[in-house]
Amino acid sequence: MDKTYIFGHKSPDTDTITSSLVMANLEKELGNDNAVACRLGNLNKETEYVLNYLGIDAPELIESVEDDANVILVDHNSPSESADNIENAKILKVVDHHKIAFETAYPLFVRSEPVGCTETILFKLYKENNVEVSKEIASLMLSAIISDTLLLKSPTTTEDDVKAVKELAEIAELDYEEYGLDMLKAGTDLSDFSIEEILSLDAKQIDFKDVKSIVNQVNTASIEEVLEMKADLEEGMNKIIEDENLDLFMLLITDIVNSNSQVIALGKSAELVEKAYDVKLEDNTVLLEGVVSRKKQVVPIMTENA
Amino acid sequence: MDKTYIFGHKSPDTDTITSSLVMANLEKELGNDNAVACRLGNLNKETEYVLNYLGIDAPELIESVEDDANVILVDHNSPSESADNIENAKILKVVDHHKIAFETAYPLFVRSEPVGCTETILFKLYKENNVEVSKEIASLMLSAIISDTLLLKSPTTTEDDVKAVKELAEIAELDYEEYGLDMLKAGTDLSDFSIEEILSLDAKQIDFKDVKSIVNQVNTASIEEVLEMKADLEEGMNKIIEDENLDLFMLLITDIVNSNSQVIALGKSAELVEKAYDVKLEDNTVLLEGVVSRKKQVVPIMTENA
Repeated sequence: MDKTYIFGHKSPDTDTITSSLVMANLEKELGNDNAVACRLGNLNKETEYVLNYLGIDAPELIESVEDDANVILVDHNSPSESADNIENAKILKVVDHHKIAFETAYPLFVRSEPVGCTETILFKLYKENNVEVSKEIASLMLSAIISDTLLLKSPTTTEDDVKAVKELAEIAELDYEEYGLDMLKAGTDLSDFSIEEILSLDAKQIDFKDVKSIVNQVNTASIEEVLEMKADLEEGMNKIIEDENLDLFMLLITDIVNSNSQVIALGKSAELVEKAYDVKLEDNTVLLEGVVSRKKQVVPIMTENA
Repeated sequence: MDKTYIFGHKSPDTDTITSSLVMANLEKELGNDNAVACRLGNLNKETEYVLNYLGIDAPELIESVEDDANVILVDHNSPSESADNIENAKILKVVDHHKIAFETAYPLFVRSEPVGCTETILFKLYKENNVEVSKEIASLMLSAIISDTLLLKSPTTTEDDVKAVKELAEIAELDYEEYGLDMLKAGTDLSDFSIEEILSLDAKQIDFKDVKSIVNQVNTASIEEVLEMKADLEEGMNKIIEDENLDLFMLLITDIVNSNSQVIALGKSAELVEKAYDVKLEDNTVLLEGVVSRKKQVVPIMTENA
């Protein structure tokens, strides 16, 4: 039988990696023995911490899919964030919590909800299909929700996410606040990364109307520490702007303890940041108070002002 | 509080009309007191039969939605099939069983499944939310599934649809085969309609790659009876082709008793029908044996050959 490749977005984060594992397990439980969890890039430090802590192997690394391959997309739906050649694959299912940015020539299973994390939806799917949530699966789900909602503090957090975290912490037998802070802090360790790697860790290509942009988000427990690399980061950003012909590169340096983001904005449309947030960039950078969510606090505001 | 307008596609059919009523009821049961079932056009004969039989009022007729109106789309997702000004509305939810043909700037609730009928999905949503399915709601759901699957005989029919029909027939206390055939036959009565009305009853604008087309489907218990109007139908089709600058107008005259479709194809791309089905049009028409589903047996084949 043909395999079913299950993967999240490029520059994978904890939600994307755990969702591919959790969805593959659900598919298997529902009788699809050919489900294979995959990933489109290297693990970040946070996800490494999670998989190490739980003793779980990472999903298989792939770059592209073959023509007519069966695929299931989790935690993304836009072709630009997906595997190469996705336009020639057969998408069987999509489970996601992002805006809709794909089209198909055929009907398919789509489950999208405006919640904080894909795993919150997957938890519902397990329940609806009466599939048992093991301690391991619960730990994966829990880790992703903590990651995406920054310990339930991000404005993307919904009641469903809070409810899921409470239930999953019970099954996982984890003190979710203690575990969660350790996990988030592990994710802020940038010491092993080159500038190029930092700039692609959680980078998303987003067009604000006609403004071709990349928005990259880096979590930290100390904005100052990251700003020590500012000159090198800007050099790297300018190179990417040139190579990819971008109008804007936004680097969000997000303080996970105090829930703010320092933004570095480069490119000929950098002033869009000033307009959108009514701020003044000084030396290409400014603190956006209370901004921690790219999806809720960056994409809609930047799009509206573009 | 702002209203939430719930509607299906233009040229409404039984699934679209009943889904707006059934979804509005679900929203109300879940606490959204502002849900209003709407429709974007006149009832067809089949749907009239259903609402008369059940003694239920038709949803409110609307044409467009205001800027920032809250809307829920059922049984469609493409802006071209939706209310005027839909691009400026706020889509809260989509429940559908068609291909994905819309985009958003924000995450939202989407529930799409490749099943025969939207009501099959709505039946699941009632169960998942522990909302009681009354005899009236069950009768609406049942009518739509019978309509979309032509009494479970269309190739769009899935196991989920069959299961839903069995369960709903129990709740509705209806002999679904007897009721269903009467309902389908009521839908084939064209006596009250002008040629223009017949040509728009269930017309969908579909682009097969670059081939700008309308595919209209008319159900009948006698293909011959409809073909008596062939000259007038062709005149009307040619007028629409000219007015809307179409490459192709396909009229499917579907025999619901024997499960075949007579197609009349006009426009400069009419030969695409010959290529797609390996047939020869004679006098612009040919019988497509076993073809009853636009979605499963027309759209993919025509797209592939375009």
